[in-house]
Amino acid sequence: MGISYNPEWWPESQWEKDFGMMKEMGFTTVRLGEFAWSSFEPHEGDYHFNWLDKVIVLAKEKGINIILGTPTAGIPPWLYKKDPNVLGANERGAFDYGGRKGFSIYNITMQQAAEKLINAMAEHYSKNPTVLGWQISNEPGYPFMNYDLNSLHAFRKWLKDHYGTIQRLNEAWGGTFWSNQYNDWDEIMFPLNSAEGGWRAGSRVDYRRFFSDSFLWWINFESDILKKYVKDQFIFTNWPDMRWSVNTYKTESLFQITAWDNYSAMPGTCDYHAQFYATKNHDLARCSRKDQLFFVSEQGTQAPTNSDQTAVRLQTYLGFAHGSQGTMFYEWRPPLAGNEQAYKSVLNVDGSYGPAEKEFRRMVKEFGRIGKQLVGATTDADIGMIYSYDNQWEQGFWQGKSLFEMTTTTSADGYDINFQRFYNGVKVLGRNVDIVAPEASKNKYKMMVVPGLQMVSEQVAKQLEDYVRQGGILVLDPMSGTRDMDARTRPLIPPGVFADIAGIKIRTTLLMSKTTGQYQMVLPDGTKATVSKMLEGVELSGAKKMVSFSGKGMEGKPAVTVNQIGKGFVVYVSAISYDKKFYDGLFAHLAKQFKIDPLLKVPEGVEVVSRKNSTGEFLFVMNLTDTEKTVYLPKAMTEIISNKQRFGTMIFPAFEVAIFKAD
Amino acid sequence: MGISYNPEWWPESQWEKDFGMMKEMGFTTVRLGEFAWSSFEPHEGDYHFNWLDKVIVLAKEKGINIILGTPTAGIPPWLYKKDPNVLGANERGAFDYGGRKGFSIYNITMQQAAEKLINAMAEHYSKNPTVLGWQISNEPGYPFMNYDLNSLHAFRKWLKDHYGTIQRLNEAWGGTFWSNQYNDWDEIMFPLNSAEGGWRAGSRVDYRRFFSDSFLWWINFESDILKKYVKDQFIFTNWPDMRWSVNTYKTESLFQITAWDNYSAMPGTCDYHAQFYATKNHDLARCSRKDQLFFVSEQGTQAPTNSDQTAVRLQTYLGFAHGSQGTMFYEWRPPLAGNEQAYKSVLNVDGSYGPAEKEFRRMVKEFGRIGKQLVGATTDADIGMIYSYDNQWEQGFWQGKSLFEMTTTTSADGYDINFQRFYNGVKVLGRNVDIVAPEASKNKYKMMVVPGLQMVSEQVAKQLEDYVRQGGILVLDPMSGTRDMDARTRPLIPPGVFADIAGIKIRTTLLMSKTTGQYQMVLPDGTKATVSKMLEGVELSGAKKMVSFSGKGMEGKPAVTVNQIGKGFVVYVSAISYDKKFYDGLFAHLAKQFKIDPLLKVPEGVEVVSRKNSTGEFLFVMNLTDTEKTVYLPKAMTEIISNKQRFGTMIFPAFEVAIFKAD
Amino acid sequence: MGISYNPEWWPESQWEKDFGMMKEMGFTTVRLGEFAWSSFEPHEGDYHFNWLDKVIVLAKEKGINIILGTPTAGIPPWLYKKDPNVLGANERGAFDYGGRKGFSIYNITMQQAAEKLINAMAEHYSKNPTVLGWQISNEPGYPFMNYDLNSLHAFRKWLKDHYGTIQRLNEAWGGTFWSNQYNDWDEIMFPLNSAEGGWRAGSRVDYRRFFSDSFLWWINFESDILKKYVKDQFIFTNWPDMRWSVNTYKTESLFQITAWDNYSAMPGTCDYHAQFYATKNHDLARCSRKDQLFFVSEQGTQAPTNSDQTAVRLQTYLGFAHGSQGTMFYEWRPPLAGNEQAYKSVLNVDGSYGPAEKEFRRMVKEFGRIGKQLVGATTDADIGMIYSYDNQWEQGFWQGKSLFEMTTTTSADGYDINFQRFYNGVKVLGRNVDIVAPEASKNKYKMMVVPGLQMVSEQVAKQLEDYVRQGGILVLDPMSGTRDMDARTRPLIPPGVFADIAGIKIRTTLLMSKTTGQYQMVLPDGTKATVSKMLEGVELSGAKKMVSFSGKGMEGKPAVTVNQIGKGFVVYVSAISYDKKFYDGLFAHLAKQFKIDPLLKVPEGVEVVSRKNSTGEFLFVMNLTDTEKTVYLPKAMTEIISNKQRFGTMIFPAFEVAIFKAD
Repeated sequence: MGISYNPEWWPESQWEKDFGMMKEMGFTTVRLGEFAWSSFEPHEGDYHFNWLDKVIVLAKEKGINIILGTPTAGIPPWLYKKDPNVLGANERGAFDYGGRKGFSIYNITMQQAAEKLINAMAEHYSKNPTVLGWQISNEPGYPFMNYDLNSLHAFRKWLKDHYGTIQRLNEAWGGTFWSNQYNDWDEIMFPLNSAEGGWRAGSRVDYRRFFSDSFLWWINFESDILKKYVKDQFIFTNWPDMRWSVNTYKTESLFQITAWDNYSAMPGTCDYHAQFYATKNHDLARCSRKDQLFFVSEQGTQAPTNSDQTAVRLQTYLGFAHGSQGTMFYEWRPPLAGNEQAYKSVLNVDGSYGPAEKEFRRMVKEFGRIGKQLVGATTDADIGMIYSYDNQWEQGFWQGKSLFEMTTTTSADGYDINFQRFYNGVKVLGRNVDIVAPEASKNKYKMMVVPGLQMVSEQVAKQLEDYVRQGGILVLDPMSGTRDMDARTRPLIPPGVFADIAGIKIRTTLLMSKTTGQYQMVLPDGTKATVSKMLEGVELSGAKKMVSFSGKGMEGKPAVTVNQIGKGFVVYVSAISYDKKFYDGLFAHLAKQFKIDPLLKVPEGVEVVSRKNSTGEFLFVMNLTDTEKTVYLPKAMTEIISNKQRFGTMIFPAFEVAIFKAD
Repeated sequence: MGISYNPEWWPESQWEKDFGMMKEMGFTTVRLGEFAWSSFEPHEGDYHFNWLDKVIVLAKEKGINIILGTPTAGIPPWLYKKDPNVLGANERGAFDYGGRKGFSIYNITMQQAAEKLINAMAEHYSKNPTVLGWQISNEPGYPFMNYDLNSLHAFRKWLKDHYGTIQRLNEAWGGTFWSNQYNDWDEIMFPLNSAEGGWRAGSRVDYRRFFSDSFLWWINFESDILKKYVKDQFIFTNWPDMRWSVNTYKTESLFQITAWDNYSAMPGTCDYHAQFYATKNHDLARCSRKDQLFFVSEQGTQAPTNSDQTAVRLQTYLGFAHGSQGTMFYEWRPPLAGNEQAYKSVLNVDGSYGPAEKEFRRMVKEFGRIGKQLVGATTDADIGMIYSYDNQWEQGFWQGKSLFEMTTTTSADGYDINFQRFYNGVKVLGRNVDIVAPEASKNKYKMMVVPGLQMVSEQVAKQLEDYVRQGGILVLDPMSGTRDMDARTRPLIPPGVFADIAGIKIRTTLLMSKTTGQYQMVLPDGTKATVSKMLEGVELSGAKKMVSFSGKGMEGKPAVTVNQIGKGFVVYVSAISYDKKFYDGLFAHLAKQFKIDPLLKVPEGVEVVSRKNSTGEFLFVMNLTDTEKTVYLPKAMTEIISNKQRFGTMIFPAFEVAIFKAD
Repeated sequence: MGISYNPEWWPESQWEKDFGMMKEMGFTTVRLGEFAWSSFEPHEGDYHFNWLDKVIVLAKEKGINIILGTPTAGIPPWLYKKDPNVLGANERGAFDYGGRKGFSIYNITMQQAAEKLINAMAEHYSKNPTVLGWQISNEPGYPFMNYDLNSLHAFRKWLKDHYGTIQRLNEAWGGTFWSNQYNDWDEIMFPLNSAEGGWRAGSRVDYRRFFSDSFLWWINFESDILKKYVKDQFIFTNWPDMRWSVNTYKTESLFQITAWDNYSAMPGTCDYHAQFYATKNHDLARCSRKDQLFFVSEQGTQAPTNSDQTAVRLQTYLGFAHGSQGTMFYEWRPPLAGNEQAYKSVLNVDGSYGPAEKEFRRMVKEFGRIGKQLVGATTDADIGMIYSYDNQWEQGFWQGKSLFEMTTTTSADGYDINFQRFYNGVKVLGRNVDIVAPEASKNKYKMMVVPGLQMVSEQVAKQLEDYVRQGGILVLDPMSGTRDMDARTRPLIPPGVFADIAGIKIRTTLLMSKTTGQYQMVLPDGTKATVSKMLEGVELSGAKKMVSFSGKGMEGKPAVTVNQIGKGFVVYVSAISYDKKFYDGLFAHLAKQFKIDPLLKVPEGVEVVSRKNSTGEFLFVMNLTDTEKTVYLPKAMTEIISNKQRFGTMIFPAFEVAIFKAD
């Protein structure tokens, strides 16, 4: 259990007291140094590590280990003054000084300054045994608009490397459309204020791929410097979320472990489905590496007024249950000035213990005991989902829109939110879920749920077909398979490469500008769920109707279909719905239809997942709600947190957690 | 019946098949070439017509005629690279490359490149008998913000030509207000980011007049080149709608025919009133020329999932009924890349026939038969409306607001939408409607409905007064007659130049920031309709109350008045309402009061209009709704589509069309 | 009673008639000259006062006095042409020409041109006995974003003067946070387009302080020129409202009187609480000077259609009742061109008397009579509120957000609106209210209501504690006392410096992204009011609960607490509510609890305030509503408008006003 701390915010006199209190509470690891560039190097080339040396000595004295952040996400004023182009640009123009991030990866001044500083830091701290590891920069990849001239030149080069010839790029981007046909690479511009049109599908997905590769390059650039010095220290970065802008499937070789910053809603503050946002990201982080290693690099330290502080413990156990190796909380002490004044922290603003004190002490005790039992535990899942960065970038939050357009839309669309809705439904199955890359092996999964796979390669399409023929159950949704990896429409009736295995044809669609509620889907049990944004006109060519539409002109027409292919099945959902009743109901029906039993039968709002190691299987049961739940345990097992044997009907108070192990 | 096709998007091998299928379906005309600049001239001065020659030969072989578009709406990258000022600017700055349009009319590089290309095209194709006509550019006049420096200089020149002296401009624009008093033309700026204020009424209407004249100049520039070569080919352009930014009343001499792109909502997808958006534009297009010649240059090719494909046929008949000479659909084959991927087209993405196939085949057959019977048919209307470009530009969609302001408002206001509400009401009369310029002769109309005529010349006001005195019925609405053609308020109590003939005085108003529903208008039959945005305090000075307000402080006060003047009447509506019940109810009452009988008595949702030629009168009856309607035909007539005699009660299925002719 | 008039808008021939009509109606003072720069100086250095001389002679002949405005808020085109930097910049870039204001205070061309013109005007008019006074510029301080380079340099200088060393500034702004630590003043930028973050709390409040000081400097600059010439003429400016951007507490020495432009909603057009917006500003204006002198420099001239013109009279009496020395109406004659065409004025657009004619004539008569009786009358209040400019600037309308963010939020938050909600509640007490600076003496007030005092100095906190200990009642709300005057969080458990005297501790909060209505406050009488945006978790450490929360997780927890300290009490409100029931109910309860009796017991919607002079006390009773009210007068008094003795039950018609004086 670790914590973030910024000694440079506080007088030296306070440091010892802070480390003393951390130790007393049981924190064993502290992250330091991110955003401290101006303290490390107050003037160009004038490095000051003395203060941090003192801090590390103090930490060591208390038995606390250190993770050091490279401070490249916070540019000191002198560096901006030296070369304003160390910051990039968004569509309003060059970034100016005043906050954080936005540095230009391709600016030589930035690269040189970063290189020198990281060399100096690594030289100084690489052999320090108190320093366990290094965090590269901070939440890399945001802002993902960096429209400076250096980036434009790098983008053109990236395109040339990617396409080889300008003819090939013109084909991919549809150059003949509107005469946007290039003769040479230097004719390509970022279309920031173009008259009508601008970012075409091909160009925007390529920009995002370029952007992802840029940050992979930057991470590699920083870690290459570190690797010249470090031996036993591990290297990682703290992803802002698992959604944004860098392809984490490509980071396995760069790092020793994956980490993400978990700022999900605290349990008890809203509907329990919101907790699946965190578990989805845990699952994705875990699946980003074969060794399943990940941890939570930042997490909130207290519950708001309307919940209970035990929610902090539950949120931590949720990570643990899904495979996290540990949790770093953010942060020890609330800053008194700057952009995040009085940020809710472990301590109150006056330095007294904050509201979740008791929970932290409890967790330290509990994890001390159960941690050993779970050593080497991994997650074994038989339900899979495919998360495709290419599709996220093409359909996601940002679609080549200007900042202006992005922030004035309230539409809850995009790849990620759609993925999340399906994930939430999948949780009804009560089984472990892997979230994998499109190219991943599918054999181990009984069911693969694949929303939003509009762009798909021939090869992946073929794999999925094979998967189905051999007995897999594949769940698809609107526009699946309709586009190639250049983001071009395939000359195939939707759902494109999946039309045959889905056993349907779609020739008409209906877009709804608002959530008018005028169309519904009627589930087999009679539940009605609202269609939200679009629906498709499905013609059955082999498939059977599972769910019908209702509403003017659509009465009784197929909304969800199922088609048997070989030993397997393709389920196709032909509408978008914002209504969670639909996803919960759909997967409850699929569970029944395909006989998928939960790890343990639990009431709604209780999550169950499992991990196992050489000693056996651990069953995590967690009440995500703020009301009491009743769980029935069909055979006697040991609950390892309390170290008590349990059997039969049990009361789970709000936010309660249990870990059962067969005796 | 024609279709758009872009051969440059497709491999040469596909062309013959496409033309074969077009012929087989019955399309006789194909539009080619718009947006193909980079295919015609891939490098500066390097013209390639060979590919199009092949295309035209293939078309000819199939008996298909060609309309060629000049490709000036799509700038090739090399031209932008040569001179970035070929694109204009919006209020965020210069346009950059990436989409379409936005070219600067006043940029010399653009003019020269366009001139050379059009000369080359015309030289090459002007004598080709397969080429029937030329379309100038594409949907000219949008974007209507072109704030580049060349335009500013041109605007100053336009103002000088228009006003003669800077003193005269200062008077018109109110220079003494806030010290905005110019000494010289070069002090005039586009106020794109002014501190407070900015575009004054005078300046914004002049900017729009200038903009309209700019595009008229550009159209003339292109067509002058063409006219050096062409003899029998006709010239036109495809207006984006009849509303935006160029005064179509001034285009009669430039073209042989008017055309507009009809992207109205398909029948069956929403309330039937929405169809009047299309019929309004048909009526306006028809009245833009004395010879009434117009056609639909683009129209959708299929109905969405929740309607029926017969809606495509109805939408086409609506144009025909209102006088259209033909319909070009958009488009033959959906593009697989670029900004409009998988656009709903005649063919599906896989090249198979699309969902409306049957309707296209049916229309080809029907129009082949009935087209001959209607040769030379024109529309004779006795109800008139005045559509004033000056007032649209002053009160319309864009009011000198920044793009930012425009797109963040949800208010359904502006000249066009107000005009449309009145037009929808007028349709209740069941008679043909002309939509004419303010200066047009009014004698033939029994009633003139004139919403939004705030700016009006003395001469037109006098004409309207004469019209009323001689027996006309004039319908006006808030602020009518209050301003002169410089957009200045007249020193007359509202409704200004119409106060005497309306028999009312208005000294107070009430603006409502929201549609609160707190005020209503109570129609003679007791129907209550909500007042939406503003109302006026009417003092009767001769007029009689026809409709009353209800609501706090307004109970029983006059909302609509009628005043007899000479042999005629002035009806004044003193509030804005977004409630269609008001307009339907008002015109139903006026029909009764003034004994205006419909061409044929039909139920709500059925439209009736007529055309006539030397052989007699054709009565078009169209069911705009997706439910069955019953129509009573009081005398025996021939329905010419089915070629059957009809009489008495008839069932009209959803979207059904009939054309009756007296025997 | 005065009026604004712009002779430069009208032909000379009309001036005499206008002054004749003004005199005939009873207007005695006319404001001229603001925005007339281009008439005074049509070309650089070419001064024309001849036309104004004629105007003033005409005024004098009619017995009308003149107030002259310096025209610096309207830049003539020639000045912008000479140096475009006379206008400043917002976050979109430099202002361009086209409206008004936005001039750069720190531009030398602007300063020199203004200096010469004001010298010339002062030289010409300072001895003219018809000219009573001078208005400096127009509504200074808006726009409050002036991001030109001159301002940046001035801001750096201001910071240097304010902080002395860059180390001190880094401490105040939290430089170590995100490495925003400056080495030198020239590293400080306006963060207009920074990547993430940007304006920190310290920087944004300093920018607003700088901006306020800039306008104080400008006002001083103009008035210093005037003071070289004028002897008996008074100097003032017309504040746009009492809220925006200049600290009016600092203007006492600059002016002879305070004035503000009152564009509050007219009585009768909406809920009567809206009238308290005007009375709040009257109270604040009155308290900006020890001598209590203020007047209304602009006020509307007519009521909208749905109210009654007697509302104009009531609005004027509201100012009078709260201490105004007079009212200038805006404006005499509606402009026929420019940005404010047909502005509702005293005259109609045709020059005839407008709808409120009768009310103006009546007021002239009434004020002529009662004015003399109230000579020297002042307001004596025993209820106080603190209005803190520093807190407004930190929490107010603009919070360092871009214009973009500001205008796309619909949230009704910020310091001013919160202050207004408390003020509206305070009016329930039925007593005079002073609105004073934080440092003002508190002794005279029985109760001090202090919403939004997040930033507070040690000294003011101590004063307030002393005030309570000596028997005062102090009302506070969320986050009070938590921050120092550098906008830094104090290391104290909230409510910070007030935690001890409030007898509570707050360690958790709940922010609600929407007004979901899921939490309520339950008042002692059972009334439920909705919590709107945030609430706090209050732990009682001495205080007693007065109001409880209801809603999930908050049931019965304290929402309002009261704590006795010495002889006084601290009342703490721990939530934000947009619901006026809460504030009305809270203060009704406090009145009962603390035995605060109204000046006169009146029904809801009737306001009562008092003024007194050497002849006795005047009790103003005003029906703010459009319905009849019954007031009971417990002892016989003279109503001085009607000059009749009154006693017992009286009927107050809509908008009626009475002034009672004890016999």
